[in-house]
Amino acid sequence: MPPNTSSPPTRRFRLKIAYDGTAYAGWQVQPDHLTIQEMLESRMEAVVGHPCKVHGSGRTDQGVHAMGQVAHVDIGTRITPRSLRLALNARLPGDIRIVGARVVNAQFHARRSAVAKEYRYFVWNDDLMPPHKRLYALHVRRPLDMDALQEAAAHFVGEHDFVAFMANPQRAVESTVRTIMECEFRRHGKRVEFRVKGSGFLYRQVRSMVGLLMRIGQGAEPPGAVAQLLAEKAPRTARVPTAPPQGLFLWQVWY
Amino acid sequence: MPPNTSSPPTRRFRLKIAYDGTAYAGWQVQPDHLTIQEMLESRMEAVVGHPCKVHGSGRTDQGVHAMGQVAHVDIGTRITPRSLRLALNARLPGDIRIVGARVVNAQFHARRSAVAKEYRYFVWNDDLMPPHKRLYALHVRRPLDMDALQEAAAHFVGEHDFVAFMANPQRAVESTVRTIMECEFRRHGKRVEFRVKGSGFLYRQVRSMVGLLMRIGQGAEPPGAVAQLLAEKAPRTARVPTAPPQGLFLWQVWY
Repeated sequence: MPPNTSSPPTRRFRLKIAYDGTAYAGWQVQPDHLTIQEMLESRMEAVVGHPCKVHGSGRTDQGVHAMGQVAHVDIGTRITPRSLRLALNARLPGDIRIVGARVVNAQFHARRSAVAKEYRYFVWNDDLMPPHKRLYALHVRRPLDMDALQEAAAHFVGEHDFVAFMANPQRAVESTVRTIMECEFRRHGKRVEFRVKGSGFLYRQVRSMVGLLMRIGQGAEPPGAVAQLLAEKAPRTARVPTAPPQGLFLWQVWY
Repeated sequence: MPPNTSSPPTRRFRLKIAYDGTAYAGWQVQPDHLTIQEMLESRMEAVVGHPCKVHGSGRTDQGVHAMGQVAHVDIGTRITPRSLRLALNARLPGDIRIVGARVVNAQFHARRSAVAKEYRYFVWNDDLMPPHKRLYALHVRRPLDMDALQEAAAHFVGEHDFVAFMANPQRAVESTVRTIMECEFRRHGKRVEFRVKGSGFLYRQVRSMVGLLMRIGQGAEPPGAVAQLLAEKAPRTARVPTAPPQGLFLWQVWY
């Protein structure tokens, strides 16, 4: 019998990835800027021995973090999911971690197979921002009205046209209608946490939602402004600022 | 009556300072390295209009953080404590914050008047270190034995010769005897917190205590090793490694 010199079949791996976005120009590969996708692809190539394209569930902007980004990658060499995870974590810097890896079937697609995504946005609501929180939360000094925030957040739940909550789109979108399944605030002392789960999100939609919500929480707009803007379906105005990136975490992707 | 051209009297201010030590070569001014003391002195001079010497309660090493460092500074211009705090925070980077400021009498000395200090050391005890915790905790994978840690920590309480827990001293010390008032562990899920309050601490004493304790928590030494090393009063050996700086916070100084 001749020795087995054939290449192993290509298998698709699903990765769960956590990262601190502070040092990166976002997820997506771009010239002259260090990105998370680029870091993953270069370390992946070093581990498996061939070039790899890492497909994420979606982009995250510069300074945005992730606890549960999901990506898929096709690998043509023999390696177990556990070895892949350990080898990647040994080579990646501490601000990018592979949380999990497993083999999936070839139909799985990190972006197209996703049925829902959850983001969380953290706010530190106090006169002083502790130094070690500054890269992971928005600082809001004025006490936030939690009742107004909860009432406003509830207006987002359901299927709506989110055109008023989309920033300068980088590409044309077929539809600006999206479905929000969960949208709520929680307070733990000075830490205010916004959770939103939806079928999908437009460009900078979560940061736009938080931008308006922070104005509502500080009394600059009534909670009903959310329902009004969703009903008007007019392009975004100065009433809806983009909240800064450092408070935002891509928390989980559902398939 | 001639206009009042005399200088206002010099007043001593006490400052409470929080910082993220990641970007600094520790507290103390040194050539060719950016330090926290130097940042404070340069911003202070810009605010009050004359050179200022900022006296801290003690040094912290490179990468060590503070929630409640205390310093005193003599100021010869008219400024309220609140204005000083706000003006400094407006000029300082976000990784150094003035938490409080007040006028104290001229006998107050941030180092010599201190009667006790509390440090806390944070450990993330899990297989995976979340990226956004990595600069503020030590990563220990093996499950820590909390009973062994509590038993070991209790041996530190009281007056002891800590020569076995002092790293290469940079200056001669009169005595290596120190008193520990409180020493305990708390666990909140994967986060393990070490708290120690003492009359004073030798060079790298807390990190040396944590270094041994982490070996005890992982079964490399019995809890009784603490009492044995304190009783032997012999210089530090490899049994007592220095825990890395990023888990350590100078938490509070008592006067």
